[in-house]
Amino acid sequence: MGAQAKISKLSKGELVLDRLNWRYAVKAYDRSKKVSESDLRILEDAMLLSPSSFGIQPYKVLVIADPAIRAKLGPAAYNQPAVTDASHLLVFAYKKTLTDDDIDGFVGRIAEVRGQTRESLAGLETAVQGAVKRSIDAGSVETWNSRQAYIALGFLLETAALLDIDATPMEGFDPKQFDGILGLTEYSSVAVAAIGYRDAENDWLAPLPKVRKPKNELIERI
Amino acid sequence: MGAQAKISKLSKGELVLDRLNWRYAVKAYDRSKKVSESDLRILEDAMLLSPSSFGIQPYKVLVIADPAIRAKLGPAAYNQPAVTDASHLLVFAYKKTLTDDDIDGFVGRIAEVRGQTRESLAGLETAVQGAVKRSIDAGSVETWNSRQAYIALGFLLETAALLDIDATPMEGFDPKQFDGILGLTEYSSVAVAAIGYRDAENDWLAPLPKVRKPKNELIERI
Repeated sequence: MGAQAKISKLSKGELVLDRLNWRYAVKAYDRSKKVSESDLRILEDAMLLSPSSFGIQPYKVLVIADPAIRAKLGPAAYNQPAVTDASHLLVFAYKKTLTDDDIDGFVGRIAEVRGQTRESLAGLETAVQGAVKRSIDAGSVETWNSRQAYIALGFLLETAALLDIDATPMEGFDPKQFDGILGLTEYSSVAVAAIGYRDAENDWLAPLPKVRKPKNELIERI
Repeated sequence: MGAQAKISKLSKGELVLDRLNWRYAVKAYDRSKKVSESDLRILEDAMLLSPSSFGIQPYKVLVIADPAIRAKLGPAAYNQPAVTDASHLLVFAYKKTLTDDDIDGFVGRIAEVRGQTRESLAGLETAVQGAVKRSIDAGSVETWNSRQAYIALGFLLETAALLDIDATPMEGFDPKQFDGILGLTEYSSVAVAAIGYRDAENDWLAPLPKVRKPKNELIERI
């Protein structure tokens, strides 16, 4: 049975797992292959659709093609080749705090999209204000905001795999240097993902089996 | 043109976006509908395949069907109906610290899966030990570990949507109460997701349009 015939017999779920098994944190990219504009738009929309606490989306994603900027970022990321060699470099940056302006903009956006009055959303606004204040008082607003960005990172990585696009999530970089190079002040870099196409022949990791915990160590049924 | 004909004209990426647009944080679940064992296995495997820093997977996912435990968790989560009414409740719990035993187990697992010697992995082991020590010294190991769990949360939510399974991510709960009820000591609850099937007629949120930031506020091309 050929690969095509095999795939046609797989369920939708098995097809997803096939792609999640195919993906790995690529170390060597083919510099000549670029992610197409239409695929890039799909990846961006998947991140835009990613859920967040209250839906407040307290982060940004910088999609960097510019080789000059990426050349500057390289040394701030242990010169990992993916930073400069992949098709694009995505930087996830969380908002360092949440202000009344942020909450006002968030509630205003809901009113606009849903055609609701601000008055009808007063209860939500109070709830969000309370949650934000508690989070700021507890010194955890940065933690809260950065976690939301990681859900979007998950959506990016899974969607890329489904589209046969390689991706390398990275935490090995200096956020302060990244923020400086990228001119970030209200936001701070927290995670990076390169996207593109693997150069399997030159990637030491390509032939090695994926390693995960035994399933019963990660997941417990109750 | 019927819905089926429309779908067959969509690209793979558009199909993914269609499902990500379809999903929302369901507030009312149909108590009579359960996620099948085969779908549950797909969702669990997707989380197992979710990447993490170094691949160390410093978290657990509790998949809770037991109604008695969920009845106890309800009041610790503002009595949100999804906690008790959805098919299953998933609790993501990060590891509160990383010990030499954790790193030893992690490197041992790589050696086992890849048929490598421990000696050949000494460089990796030193690198992981250094990163863990720096993270513990900076008081950020809990932050680091919990972020990894959010990537898996993203994988859960996207995979569920692709399988037409509803899901509700929740942060509105008391982690200390959850940990107590669930007997967690080395791990701590950080996020919850209910999964199941929407009861759209009784869900106030079902008819409302999804709200997201304008794309150019979330994503910046450089």
